[in-house]
Amino acid sequence: MPLPSRRAAAVAPFLAMDVMTAAAARERTGAGVVHMEVGQPSAPAPRPVIEAARRALETGRVPYTEALGLAALRERIARDYRERYGVAVPPERVVVTTGSSAGFILAFMSLFDAGDRVGVPQPGYPAYRSILNALDLVPAPMLLRPEDRFAPTAALLAATHATAPLAGVLVMSPANPSGTVITPAALADLCTEAARLGLPLISDEIYHGLSYGVPTATALQFDPDAVVINSFSKYHCMTGWRIGWMIVPESLVRPVERLAQNLYISPPYLSQVGALAAFEAGAELDAVRDGYARNRAILLDAFPGLGLGRTHPVDGAFYLYADVSGLTNDAPAFCRRMLDEAGVAATPGLDFDPVEGAHHVRFSFAGSEDECREAVRRLRGWLG
Amino acid sequence: MPLPSRRAAAVAPFLAMDVMTAAAARERTGAGVVHMEVGQPSAPAPRPVIEAARRALETGRVPYTEALGLAALRERIARDYRERYGVAVPPERVVVTTGSSAGFILAFMSLFDAGDRVGVPQPGYPAYRSILNALDLVPAPMLLRPEDRFAPTAALLAATHATAPLAGVLVMSPANPSGTVITPAALADLCTEAARLGLPLISDEIYHGLSYGVPTATALQFDPDAVVINSFSKYHCMTGWRIGWMIVPESLVRPVERLAQNLYISPPYLSQVGALAAFEAGAELDAVRDGYARNRAILLDAFPGLGLGRTHPVDGAFYLYADVSGLTNDAPAFCRRMLDEAGVAATPGLDFDPVEGAHHVRFSFAGSEDECREAVRRLRGWLG
Repeated sequence: MPLPSRRAAAVAPFLAMDVMTAAAARERTGAGVVHMEVGQPSAPAPRPVIEAARRALETGRVPYTEALGLAALRERIARDYRERYGVAVPPERVVVTTGSSAGFILAFMSLFDAGDRVGVPQPGYPAYRSILNALDLVPAPMLLRPEDRFAPTAALLAATHATAPLAGVLVMSPANPSGTVITPAALADLCTEAARLGLPLISDEIYHGLSYGVPTATALQFDPDAVVINSFSKYHCMTGWRIGWMIVPESLVRPVERLAQNLYISPPYLSQVGALAAFEAGAELDAVRDGYARNRAILLDAFPGLGLGRTHPVDGAFYLYADVSGLTNDAPAFCRRMLDEAGVAATPGLDFDPVEGAHHVRFSFAGSEDECREAVRRLRGWLG
Repeated sequence: MPLPSRRAAAVAPFLAMDVMTAAAARERTGAGVVHMEVGQPSAPAPRPVIEAARRALETGRVPYTEALGLAALRERIARDYRERYGVAVPPERVVVTTGSSAGFILAFMSLFDAGDRVGVPQPGYPAYRSILNALDLVPAPMLLRPEDRFAPTAALLAATHATAPLAGVLVMSPANPSGTVITPAALADLCTEAARLGLPLISDEIYHGLSYGVPTATALQFDPDAVVINSFSKYHCMTGWRIGWMIVPESLVRPVERLAQNLYISPPYLSQVGALAAFEAGAELDAVRDGYARNRAILLDAFPGLGLGRTHPVDGAFYLYADVSGLTNDAPAFCRRMLDEAGVAATPGLDFDPVEGAHHVRFSFAGSEDECREAVRRLRGWLG
């Protein structure tokens, strides 16, 4: 039997997905699970999205589109930057992607060559590291510090670049798993520093729209050449549709188009049609976000009493990243037992941080208020 | 502005997609186009597929799935190998992918490391070359010969490996653009030779189900460790759904799963639900295939009189790959004029072959019978 390649062997499992698989297996036995392991809204896709997809289905036509996406969707996304952030983005620079997953692959491939080092926040979204490894690129961890509220800073970027030169840097706000929102001023500093160092900046903004009382800025406000990655999965509740977008500088449009033609052909059609309609669903989606705010309050209220009180900031996104060092130094074993014994699925921190993650657990509060209350009840019984 | 990477610069445009973009621009001016440029069935997705997707939409739930796909779909695909080919494939070895595009990326990444040479047929599907280049792998063209009816042979594989060692080989049957079906005996020989040379074999079988009076075999009949790539796009008329599958040997299941988790999260949900229902649509899909057979007859009858008579075999798939050396040695210019002056979109052969492609054009006959007749009428007016 063929042996896997070295690069495949270097890719770590995505533990959240493995927990999801284990949780699904438990459910097939008839046991109940409160799902807090995957960053997935339990709210359905908004009504206009479902309706638009249904109408498209009725025609029977579900074709390939142009590789960069439907023109109407690219125009609508461009308009959103004008309306939401006051930033002018021509539709030609909007790239519709098969989820943010494709956005990262296209960004990394179009900017970097084998061996290039790319600064990524730690803790951070594990697929950054894995995709970089799979593409023979080198993730350079930028170790986030409690004194910075786990936000990357211009100084941290400069220090990481000084250790060994970077070819680019990725930042994320609101962040997964920390929930940290980078302040507009700090994001401006990061953009300035990246420009000073001559580094392209990739800004992962997939949790925009989900923040709790703090403002969020797009990197495009401070660096017109930033590569921005976004998605309809989170704020728009469209995970399984696999649809997202990028904003790329003019110099990358054609290289990204050539890559997208060959690597994806086009993003899924029904998802593009649905995404276009998602812009009509603001009120419905803001109500979902208000639900997250209530869930967040429930967890922040109950968790300290369970020994889960030391958390990273929860400015935005829908995660509570808890320091569980008072309970365990083996987060994977802790999560397995929590699933088996309490029926609560959550993700070991090692997904996000190979060191500190051993005593962290990420709880997603993107489910319903009832699920959050039930999780607290189960955890209280199990830990209390 | 950031410069594109060297690897992005090395990726050629997918000319068929560029022609599609030019054709769409022409249509926006109100001019009619007969589309023969992209390998896309004009028939809608089958009724059971539409119905299943509609029912799923009604629940509002469009979630991530496990990274390797819905268990029921993996089981149904496995059953199809038993029923169609008499081959036992456990569902655990079935990987549901976001189109065959994801299948190629996962196959290449999981098998090969930077610098590895991979044998690919020439002429052949251009994304093979482009994806290999984007992953820092080296496409090693296996030059198909008229005396072999443009089928790769065991001798050609051995000769290519002797020139400079390969790390693996990819074959395709029915082939794009040639239409060649590799006979079962020749496929068995290829599998034996690859095994003798110690090379993993990737078999692209995405046009299975579409052949005209000749038998097709799966590589799994001759090599249980072959990596098979397939898709619901062609026979099942589900292009814009972006859904396909792979069969991988046991040794690659977990490496491919880790890559899929990080690179794709999961294939699109509605497309997986639709794909499961596609297995109920055999009669409807065979009727579509019978339509291709009629289209094929129309073109094979008319094209010789237009100076387009020298074609590669048209055993299967839905392409006629015509030698246009009697008319031009600049296929891209020829195709541009054919679009501008005759309103017929077809793909220059350079997509498939950087040398001989300069005097070849690929016509897709996956449209309707009326479109095929209209294409012939227009071409007769233009060339006659």
